[in-house]
Amino acid sequence: MYVGRFVVVGPDVGAYRVSSRSFPNRQIVARDDALTVGPTEDAPETDNPYVSYNCLRVVETPTGETAAFGNGSHVDPIAEKLELGYPARDALAESLLALDYEKDDYDTPRIAATIGDDEALIGTVRRDALLVETVDEPTLVATYEKNAPESIDFAAEAAGDAASDAYDLEFEHAVCAAGVARTDAGFETAIENGD
Amino acid sequence: MYVGRFVVVGPDVGAYRVSSRSFPNRQIVARDDALTVGPTEDAPETDNPYVSYNCLRVVETPTGETAAFGNGSHVDPIAEKLELGYPARDALAESLLALDYEKDDYDTPRIAATIGDDEALIGTVRRDALLVETVDEPTLVATYEKNAPESIDFAAEAAGDAASDAYDLEFEHAVCAAGVARTDAGFETAIENGD
Amino acid sequence: MYVGRFVVVGPDVGAYRVSSRSFPNRQIVARDDALTVGPTEDAPETDNPYVSYNCLRVVETPTGETAAFGNGSHVDPIAEKLELGYPARDALAESLLALDYEKDDYDTPRIAATIGDDEALIGTVRRDALLVETVDEPTLVATYEKNAPESIDFAAEAAGDAASDAYDLEFEHAVCAAGVARTDAGFETAIENGD
Amino acid sequence: MYVGRFVVVGPDVGAYRVSSRSFPNRQIVARDDALTVGPTEDAPETDNPYVSYNCLRVVETPTGETAAFGNGSHVDPIAEKLELGYPARDALAESLLALDYEKDDYDTPRIAATIGDDEALIGTVRRDALLVETVDEPTLVATYEKNAPESIDFAAEAAGDAASDAYDLEFEHAVCAAGVARTDAGFETAIENGD
Repeated sequence: MYVGRFVVVGPDVGAYRVSSRSFPNRQIVARDDALTVGPTEDAPETDNPYVSYNCLRVVETPTGETAAFGNGSHVDPIAEKLELGYPARDALAESLLALDYEKDDYDTPRIAATIGDDEALIGTVRRDALLVETVDEPTLVATYEKNAPESIDFAAEAAGDAASDAYDLEFEHAVCAAGVARTDAGFETAIENGD
Repeated sequence: MYVGRFVVVGPDVGAYRVSSRSFPNRQIVARDDALTVGPTEDAPETDNPYVSYNCLRVVETPTGETAAFGNGSHVDPIAEKLELGYPARDALAESLLALDYEKDDYDTPRIAATIGDDEALIGTVRRDALLVETVDEPTLVATYEKNAPESIDFAAEAAGDAASDAYDLEFEHAVCAAGVARTDAGFETAIENGD
Repeated sequence: MYVGRFVVVGPDVGAYRVSSRSFPNRQIVARDDALTVGPTEDAPETDNPYVSYNCLRVVETPTGETAAFGNGSHVDPIAEKLELGYPARDALAESLLALDYEKDDYDTPRIAATIGDDEALIGTVRRDALLVETVDEPTLVATYEKNAPESIDFAAEAAGDAASDAYDLEFEHAVCAAGVARTDAGFETAIENGD
Repeated sequence: MYVGRFVVVGPDVGAYRVSSRSFPNRQIVARDDALTVGPTEDAPETDNPYVSYNCLRVVETPTGETAAFGNGSHVDPIAEKLELGYPARDALAESLLALDYEKDDYDTPRIAATIGDDEALIGTVRRDALLVETVDEPTLVATYEKNAPESIDFAAEAAGDAASDAYDLEFEHAVCAAGVARTDAGFETAIENGD
């Protein structure tokens, strides 16, 4: 099954995977406090602005630290609202509603998740819905087919496992994946770019 | 089962029912373009502002007519955003997020629904979630227990049947109900205040 | 000049005054953590929902305490967003935009202000504008005529003086006023109901 | 005086000018329904995501056509909210508030304007303010110094004049400019990229 890009959230661990039929030449790189999706060196030139974006950021909030991740440029305003003190529910809902689904041929939804001090949330905005909810077990939402949050078996506890397990999930056309986990020393992140 | 107040939406018919353990002395009255919940004449005095509110309004939008209904003062901004031209998804999401769940002992959610020219939606804001989605079969959301949208058997096609069927649903402590249906001549509404 | 209801904010002191041609029989009463505008005992009955509302609330935020005040039911969501951790700018903007100007014969704006730990803001939503800004000197916004924030001489430093000075300002048809000031022991509030 | 990037709006004509000390090697190109700011061929490589964005879009709304322009990626959600039917005031306010000022060394504001069927608006979001208002005479807002809307002499009536007049305004470090005007045949746009 091809479900497109997806997020999984733990509640203490999370992952974001790029799946793509159209733009397989992409990778995730770490820079500053963000993991960023971008073209590989051998990618054909494109002016599609959805190809490059911060897919995961860890930010300091007034009460601790939160990781935010998702499939596009909405990860930045979500992270920045969290820094300002918004509850995660509100940071997700306001940013998803304002940036809305992608106006492409598939009305591709925006998806995102957060892991905070004591709660994790998942969300999506589709042409026909805005869904943001707290999770207490591993939950997935994808851009296609599985486009509402649903439970998933996901046993990873460390960031590296989260990235590689997400990469290895049976859904078609894996390109790259990011993982994140809360540890006693703060959030750790990991990248799985295939080979 | 006690599920508190609830909305049902069709997609071409809808209802809102007040169920209450604490404030049973309430009724729905029609005034201007709204159905309004308020105390009956023999109700004890209260300064609880959640006792009186417009529970259903029919408004003209730039492209037609839409009915909006729900369990509190958020029905007014939802209706007014629809009049201004907002899509129903956005009118529901923005108003529910801004007014948020009730800060009472139960964190009572706000619930609402709309029936428009060619789509119907249902939504709720809870302490832990914001859910707004399009429906294509009869769907219910309640303040308690059934606090996420779920399918329900609801065969009413006219406003009067919608009000009385909602009133008669097995959930406990029915107080009063409003019904609404789209007809060729526009929306019709109905009230069921029990005996 | 008749400017209708107005707020003044300090930045360390603030006031809200009810001015009214139509509903002079109103007063402010203190209850719990709010000052509430409501009808006097000899007021004629009305079903105008704008007659009663919390005009001033002091709430605990994740970083301290903030006072929020204004001319209608938007004071509650503003206060509640502050409690959740929203910056004052965002609590004001989101609540004013969602509840919008009053849909009466005058398109009466909603006005509000906040005094927080280290900043004060003023805001209004009109049919043609949304204005929210930080103030560093006494600033006024009113529902009519002076419907954009402007500087004003306002020397009060204590809550009682703020209430009585606002009540005594030359603008016509004073009904009642609330004052608030930040002191070393937290916020103090005061009420001026005329005679 | 260096005021950074700025917008001028007419109300029937508008312009956006890029001024820059740091990234002078930029130009505006027309593509599909948008004017897009991007690097010139001889620009040094940068991964600054604020260098490329749609600065002006003309969209169909439920009631006509509207032009939206501004200094960053918020132009897209503003344009898309207008397409969905939002009033311009709300499209500007919601998008500016969600995407917020740039988190750079200068807390650079986001600025934007719209020209619609019968009204024009201007707006900005700063760390300390959100200002969105209707204009009825030529009005300017810039990222620095002139960071609240103010009147300006601007006599251009055609898109080409608007672009070149904005480019030639005395403010320092002009890089390129876009102009837009409403004509009987719809909106026309123009580009001034200097020599």
